[in-house]
Amino acid sequence: MAVEQLSEEERDSWLRALPKWSSCRDGAAIERKFEFSDFSEAFSFMTRVAMIAETRDHHPEWFNVYNRVEITLTTHDAGGLSLRDVKMARKIDALLA
Amino acid sequence: MAVEQLSEEERDSWLRALPKWSSCRDGAAIERKFEFSDFSEAFSFMTRVAMIAETRDHHPEWFNVYNRVEITLTTHDAGGLSLRDVKMARKIDALLA
Repeated sequence: MAVEQLSEEERDSWLRALPKWSSCRDGAAIERKFEFSDFSEAFSFMTRVAMIAETRDHHPEWFNVYNRVEITLTTHDAGGLSLRDVKMARKIDALLA
Repeated sequence: MAVEQLSEEERDSWLRALPKWSSCRDGAAIERKFEFSDFSEAFSFMTRVAMIAETRDHHPEWFNVYNRVEITLTTHDAGGLSLRDVKMARKIDALLA
């Protein structure tokens, strides 16, 4: 099933619903930065995100150093941001709610 | 215990012993890029590296997207490359030997 890129209007609307995420790459992706108390906590979080990613077959671009994690979500197949990224961002937010 | 930065001579000598790693950041760090068959394999590798990192209390800067992992090692306390990075690189290499 083809994944469709969000329209600019949809994107803006979803971004308002995801206040912790920022638009990046000219609107083609969203990113969020996380800070934990130490590496163990950061990597535990990453492991939970990895499970979500694998289950949904939708994988983040991410960077970690010690207690910091930066996640970027985009849908390569759609050439930009899709509903899959929005859903993934919500799942990730829910881990920390 | 203070961690000492490697001299340029030591660095060159160690880099010859670590052919899969490249010097970066003007010699202040080393990096290696890995490619796996899929995300599951990449993240399994990352989990093993995380265990090593936590055990040694020496943590990588790393990036992952799907089956690719990029690891950068440097010793912030030493302001550059130290023997801790070299030992860590050898441990990481050993995981894939």
